[in-house]
Amino acid sequence: MNEYRYSDIQIGQTESFTKEITREMENAFRGITGDENPLHRDDAFAQSIGGGKFKNHVAFGMLTASLLSTLAGVYLPGKYSLIHSVEQVSFKKPVYAGDTLSVQGTVEDKLDGLNLILVKIKITNQEKKCVLTASMKVLVQK
Amino acid sequence: MNEYRYSDIQIGQTESFTKEITREMENAFRGITGDENPLHRDDAFAQSIGGGKFKNHVAFGMLTASLLSTLAGVYLPGKYSLIHSVEQVSFKKPVYAGDTLSVQGTVEDKLDGLNLILVKIKITNQEKKCVLTASMKVLVQK
Repeated sequence: MNEYRYSDIQIGQTESFTKEITREMENAFRGITGDENPLHRDDAFAQSIGGGKFKNHVAFGMLTASLLSTLAGVYLPGKYSLIHSVEQVSFKKPVYAGDTLSVQGTVEDKLDGLNLILVKIKITNQEKKCVLTASMKVLVQK
Repeated sequence: MNEYRYSDIQIGQTESFTKEITREMENAFRGITGDENPLHRDDAFAQSIGGGKFKNHVAFGMLTASLLSTLAGVYLPGKYSLIHSVEQVSFKKPVYAGDTLSVQGTVEDKLDGLNLILVKIKITNQEKKCVLTASMKVLVQK
C-alpha cells in the first residue's frame, strides 16, 4: 500500500494496477447490492437486450467503477486518502467475467489548501480497449 | 423487479428502497476490490485520520455508490436498463456498518431518441441525514 502524503504527490503522477473480473466477484457484488438484473447473470437475456452487442452476461458497471476505491485507497495516494467525490464515470465498453482490467490513475491537478487531488482514471481490458473513464477528487492527508 | 419501458417512465417519477450496510458487506466489498485501506476496517485509524470526525471505521464510499446499480437494475427502470454514465457522486457524510440507507431516485429528464433517462439520486441514513448525492443517465429499452 502506498503512503503518499499531499506534499509527495506530483501533477502528472501515474499509478496503476491490474485486476481480473471473475464470476465470484460478480456473485459477491450481486449479494452486496441486491442487483438481480438478468443482464448481469443471464447470457441469453444480455444477448437479446444488447441487440447482439453483448456476447454474454455483462459485469456490473458499478463493479468496475468500484476499482476506483482500490486506486485511491491502495495506490494513489494509498493509506492517507479519502474519496471526496467522483466527478464522472463513463461506461465505454462491456466488461465480461474473465477480463483482466488495467486501472490507471493520473494526477491532473492539486487543489492546495483543500488538500484535494484531481485524478483522471482510465480502465482498459486485456485487448487494450478502454472500458471506463472517470475522474475523482481525493482528499490526501498532509 | 420493475419492468418499466422507456415510454412508461414519467419525468418526476420516484422509486426508492432501503438497505442496511453490514460488516459482511464491507468484507465482501474489500474482497472484490482489494481495497485494504485501514480507514475501512481499523476504528482507531479512522478516528485519527478524521480528526475525531469519524466515530469508527467508515464504510467504503464506493460501496454506498454501488447501490446505484440496484436502483437502476431493479427499481428505476428495473429489468430493461443499462447504466450509461454516472455524472456526479458526492459523499456528504460517513456511512457506518449498521446504518440503514434509503436510496431514492427521481427522473429529472428524458432524452427522447437516445432512450436515456436522467436520474437524480439521494441516499439518506436512518437519521434522515443525506450521505450521498449523485446523478446518472440510464438507457431504457423501448
